[in-house]
Amino acid sequence: MDKTVIYGKNAIIEALEQGEREFNKILISDNSRSDAKIEQIKRLAKQNGVIFQFVTKEKLNSIEPDGKHQGVIGLVAPIKYTELDDFIEKNRNERTGIVILDGVEDSHNVGAIIRSCVCAGIKGIILPSRRGVLINSTVEKTSAGAANHISIMKVNSLVSAVQKLKDNDYWVIASDHHAEQNHYEVDYTDMNFALIMGAEHAGISKSLLKLSDFKVKIPMLTNFNSLNVSNATAIILFEYVSQLCKKTRGNKNE
Amino acid sequence: MDKTVIYGKNAIIEALEQGEREFNKILISDNSRSDAKIEQIKRLAKQNGVIFQFVTKEKLNSIEPDGKHQGVIGLVAPIKYTELDDFIEKNRNERTGIVILDGVEDSHNVGAIIRSCVCAGIKGIILPSRRGVLINSTVEKTSAGAANHISIMKVNSLVSAVQKLKDNDYWVIASDHHAEQNHYEVDYTDMNFALIMGAEHAGISKSLLKLSDFKVKIPMLTNFNSLNVSNATAIILFEYVSQLCKKTRGNKNE
Repeated sequence: MDKTVIYGKNAIIEALEQGEREFNKILISDNSRSDAKIEQIKRLAKQNGVIFQFVTKEKLNSIEPDGKHQGVIGLVAPIKYTELDDFIEKNRNERTGIVILDGVEDSHNVGAIIRSCVCAGIKGIILPSRRGVLINSTVEKTSAGAANHISIMKVNSLVSAVQKLKDNDYWVIASDHHAEQNHYEVDYTDMNFALIMGAEHAGISKSLLKLSDFKVKIPMLTNFNSLNVSNATAIILFEYVSQLCKKTRGNKNE
Repeated sequence: MDKTVIYGKNAIIEALEQGEREFNKILISDNSRSDAKIEQIKRLAKQNGVIFQFVTKEKLNSIEPDGKHQGVIGLVAPIKYTELDDFIEKNRNERTGIVILDGVEDSHNVGAIIRSCVCAGIKGIILPSRRGVLINSTVEKTSAGAANHISIMKVNSLVSAVQKLKDNDYWVIASDHHAEQNHYEVDYTDMNFALIMGAEHAGISKSLLKLSDFKVKIPMLTNFNSLNVSNATAIILFEYVSQLCKKTRGNKNE
């Protein structure tokens, strides 16, 4: 069972600063050396009216057995998922990018993808309820708090979600290493897009590929055709960011 | 102590196919369902004259306690590090890209970076002997076997290594989020380059920044300025790949 905890100093600082997560309390190891970050956590907790409590390291280890808590664990209310309809409505009047994860199973990858999405100005992530990873403590830790900066949606059917996005003026882009078009040959800047990334071995399901408006591949310089899915996502998203930066700069120079 | 083992089905298949790692033996769980990949491992082991042996799951767990072995562990000779001088000599007559990791401490990140490097045609990686991660089982597993496809160098002084590269016609590029130049504004295709990536929080050491010919940043669309280091590396390396693909295509069309 995944308890609703946030652990790791940076993840907790981020969540406290962001203020969108409801903390029950923060547990701090009573024998950890107090460093600048622990002091910052205590200060932020006081500011936010969050109780903190000193406990033994053994207590922390019992909550987070992998020992990656860095001496501090936050007990929080579960992350709030967003409804797809609400998301579409809220973002109807501006260009919006979404990432859809089709069966990505590794929590570290999902966390890193959330970080990249937030850095790239992506506004929403869609996860399937039944396959792949939902947001757990490892995802939150790996996301370094980014999970609080983006709308996260879980849906029963990715096909229905993609169809709904298409009906609402989103273009659907599938990352597929069999594609003919290179990822940098699509202009991402002038549309609402939903980028589908698949599981590392299985790829994207056929039903989703069929719904896609573009299929793009990341060209490789060797036959070792095996990028980590979070790296592949980052490469495509930051191609979009580069295009947008070049365009903005171009407009300024006109 | 990090035992010299490779674990995970894909990592072992990759190492057997590549043939550059000297296997002592391969241990297979005696109660794992035999699937296509286990059969492939057995076949490759026979072809390569490598002994395989059925053992209890408990035995495998005692060697790799995180339980990520997927029912198969290879006992191998340690990875062979390359000498920087030999690397420079061997690659003297062609355009060469290198990645230098300055204090990257997370094994998953180092493994994912090695994968991206191999996909992007990077020929060497330099790690410091004393700070950061050397190649351990987690790195090998995360690299999905890519660690066998690239020259890995460990050096006592990154400063001396960078100076030596500069003396041998390499341009040094530092990833630094304080930089003024965007990563896509450098033409990587017409030079030997050494790309330095720093630890996520500390960044690149000042002495290395001073030696750099270019400092580049990845522009962000939000204030959440915190890309995972393996994603940042992938973004810059695949900007290089895109440039190279565009150039090659351009030349073909001339």
